[in-house]
Amino acid sequence: MSIPVPPVPTFPPAEHTLSSVKGLRAAGVRAGLKASGNPDVGLLVADAPMACAGVFTQNHFAAAPVLRSREHLAKSGGLVRALVVNSGNANACTGAQGERDALETCERVAKAVGCPVEQVLVCSTGVIGQKLPMEKLRAGVDAALAALSTEPAAGRRFLEAIMTTDAYPKEASARAGDGVVAGVCKGAGMIQPDMATMLAFVAMDLDVSPRELRAAITPVAEASFNAVHVDTHTSTNDTFLLLSTRARPAPASWRAPVEQVARRLAWLIARDGEGATKVTTIEVRGAASDAAAKAIAQHVAASALVRTALFGNDPNWGRFVSQVGNCREVKDARSLVCRLQGTEVFRAGEPTPFDRAAASKAMAADDVRLELALSDGSGQAMLMTSDLGYRYVQVNAEYTT
Amino acid sequence: MSIPVPPVPTFPPAEHTLSSVKGLRAAGVRAGLKASGNPDVGLLVADAPMACAGVFTQNHFAAAPVLRSREHLAKSGGLVRALVVNSGNANACTGAQGERDALETCERVAKAVGCPVEQVLVCSTGVIGQKLPMEKLRAGVDAALAALSTEPAAGRRFLEAIMTTDAYPKEASARAGDGVVAGVCKGAGMIQPDMATMLAFVAMDLDVSPRELRAAITPVAEASFNAVHVDTHTSTNDTFLLLSTRARPAPASWRAPVEQVARRLAWLIARDGEGATKVTTIEVRGAASDAAAKAIAQHVAASALVRTALFGNDPNWGRFVSQVGNCREVKDARSLVCRLQGTEVFRAGEPTPFDRAAASKAMAADDVRLELALSDGSGQAMLMTSDLGYRYVQVNAEYTT
Repeated sequence: MSIPVPPVPTFPPAEHTLSSVKGLRAAGVRAGLKASGNPDVGLLVADAPMACAGVFTQNHFAAAPVLRSREHLAKSGGLVRALVVNSGNANACTGAQGERDALETCERVAKAVGCPVEQVLVCSTGVIGQKLPMEKLRAGVDAALAALSTEPAAGRRFLEAIMTTDAYPKEASARAGDGVVAGVCKGAGMIQPDMATMLAFVAMDLDVSPRELRAAITPVAEASFNAVHVDTHTSTNDTFLLLSTRARPAPASWRAPVEQVARRLAWLIARDGEGATKVTTIEVRGAASDAAAKAIAQHVAASALVRTALFGNDPNWGRFVSQVGNCREVKDARSLVCRLQGTEVFRAGEPTPFDRAAASKAMAADDVRLELALSDGSGQAMLMTSDLGYRYVQVNAEYTT
Repeated sequence: MSIPVPPVPTFPPAEHTLSSVKGLRAAGVRAGLKASGNPDVGLLVADAPMACAGVFTQNHFAAAPVLRSREHLAKSGGLVRALVVNSGNANACTGAQGERDALETCERVAKAVGCPVEQVLVCSTGVIGQKLPMEKLRAGVDAALAALSTEPAAGRRFLEAIMTTDAYPKEASARAGDGVVAGVCKGAGMIQPDMATMLAFVAMDLDVSPRELRAAITPVAEASFNAVHVDTHTSTNDTFLLLSTRARPAPASWRAPVEQVARRLAWLIARDGEGATKVTTIEVRGAASDAAAKAIAQHVAASALVRTALFGNDPNWGRFVSQVGNCREVKDARSLVCRLQGTEVFRAGEPTPFDRAAASKAMAADDVRLELALSDGSGQAMLMTSDLGYRYVQVNAEYTT
């Protein structure tokens, strides 16, 4: 059978890469962990301990590198020298051997950099349930150590080395005073064959403390990566790190460019759902609380009926409003007003007459906006979701573990 | 593009139909509500008031007939003479006019039958947001009244009249002592273009009281229709009624055949997810409570990753166990044992070696069993779900409201 593969979108490269961050060197090398032969070991090393904060998967089956990095971040007081990442193998569901392998990888980097082992973080992404091929990985780590560079291309090679099934590289950057905020991530909208792993690293050269980063990371994550609907599926390896080399003064408003970079990265993830043709932003207003608004948005985004309607450019108000109507976080749905790309399609229990052909045409866009306004209170939330098309089924049904 | 349409399964007709139930007459006629011209008005009339219990959608946008039937059931004390059903139009999101139309339909039947209006129940299914074409419906009701019959074919015509996008008629029956339990339903596995409406009617000729039916209906629904994963989407019109003409003595064990009929109907719904190729029964054991077990089963069934793996006959343990791992109702996932069609694929944090080709072959069956065993407590649950394939996307993306 022939499934139309939606064209892969292209985006201009970001102005700055991770290696543009003052005090940070980057590398990405081929270690043979990926069958494709693409780069699969990435390394970031700071000239001096950099401030770091992280959020990690809550999955019960959190992978060995997640456990290790979480411990190192606590032990080091949020001051780290290096981050080593491999793709091609997630080192998840690998038992005690997996834990030893994650530690050994950190130790190898720590020894070369000359820092305590707890100043090295480690991330892995790829197939799960298979032991890391340590011989290849050791050689890869050594090659990456040798390749560290501050050239812009080094940051791009790091990015290549963390990608798995991503259809395109995901990067973003912004200025913050005289400093640079540069971010990369990997992961696709809803889902990956290898369990939807999302890795995101946003680095800057601003003088902010580990405490300031820790205070910033939760709201930043909420407004970005946690606002991407991931099909109720958080992976064993999900990791988001904020890193800062503290090489330049931080402007008072340093959080804004960080959030801007994180949101762009999150949008790029949502856009890369397998076979996705757009990003739909679901905006809920007037819920009983912000938490209720988020739950309603997630409930709507979770519906395969809603997501197939988005794929089909179908202004199917019935699917949207009935999904709101069966959400337990809604107190009174009678006041619901539903707008699609700015066009009102439903109000107070009945459909609003609208031009279906025009509404459908307006949905054939890179960004679609679905507004759901209630009168339960002042809670609001926004969520970015992929649509669900043929290609999604193909990628996920025909991939075999 | 060419999407393979899975073959429509065929099932032998049930031994008994609704019109086999002693004291009950049935009819199904063409009123022109469906564009297809298929039967679209069904009627059941009992010779004397019959016991009745019902469960209805909890959707905030519950349709006019749902509101009307719920009220009638309360007012009549659970004793009803007639049930009138139309397909082709759901009379949902139709405002005050919709409420008047539902009442008028009941009044028309009540007058003809010679009973108080609260002894007539009404159900509708089909497109939402459009007013009922009352002229056609009135003529249809009159034709159905004239066609009432106790012949077995009359029950089948009633069943035809309630179908919408169903791929096949759904009926089941059983003996209960000297009596008959006969059931019909409409609805497809996860989802319908017209908002997944499920209507199910199980009638019997046993001497059970409205109170006994009310006590029975919740556990029966839990073990059957509520054990079908409906993609978090309950419709505006979902209705399940138990009816009994009380024409024969009821054996002590009368609930068992009722549950058996309801479970078979629920299975037929799960099997009819658009493009579904099988029914997967998810069995959770060892959860903290039955409620936790049910939530875990629903969380697993809700994953498009899991459902595409089922469609692809992919023994992808990683998707199943990571979904368990990110479920908040799981206390300790380390003890999880996962079995697929009886084959252990995961235990205590690591995959169990198994023959992938054989496991995949075993998944190409009409019934697939996914067992998830925890050690949190003694809670258990089972859930039937459809798989998610190309045809699902086609039906749901290319259907326009």
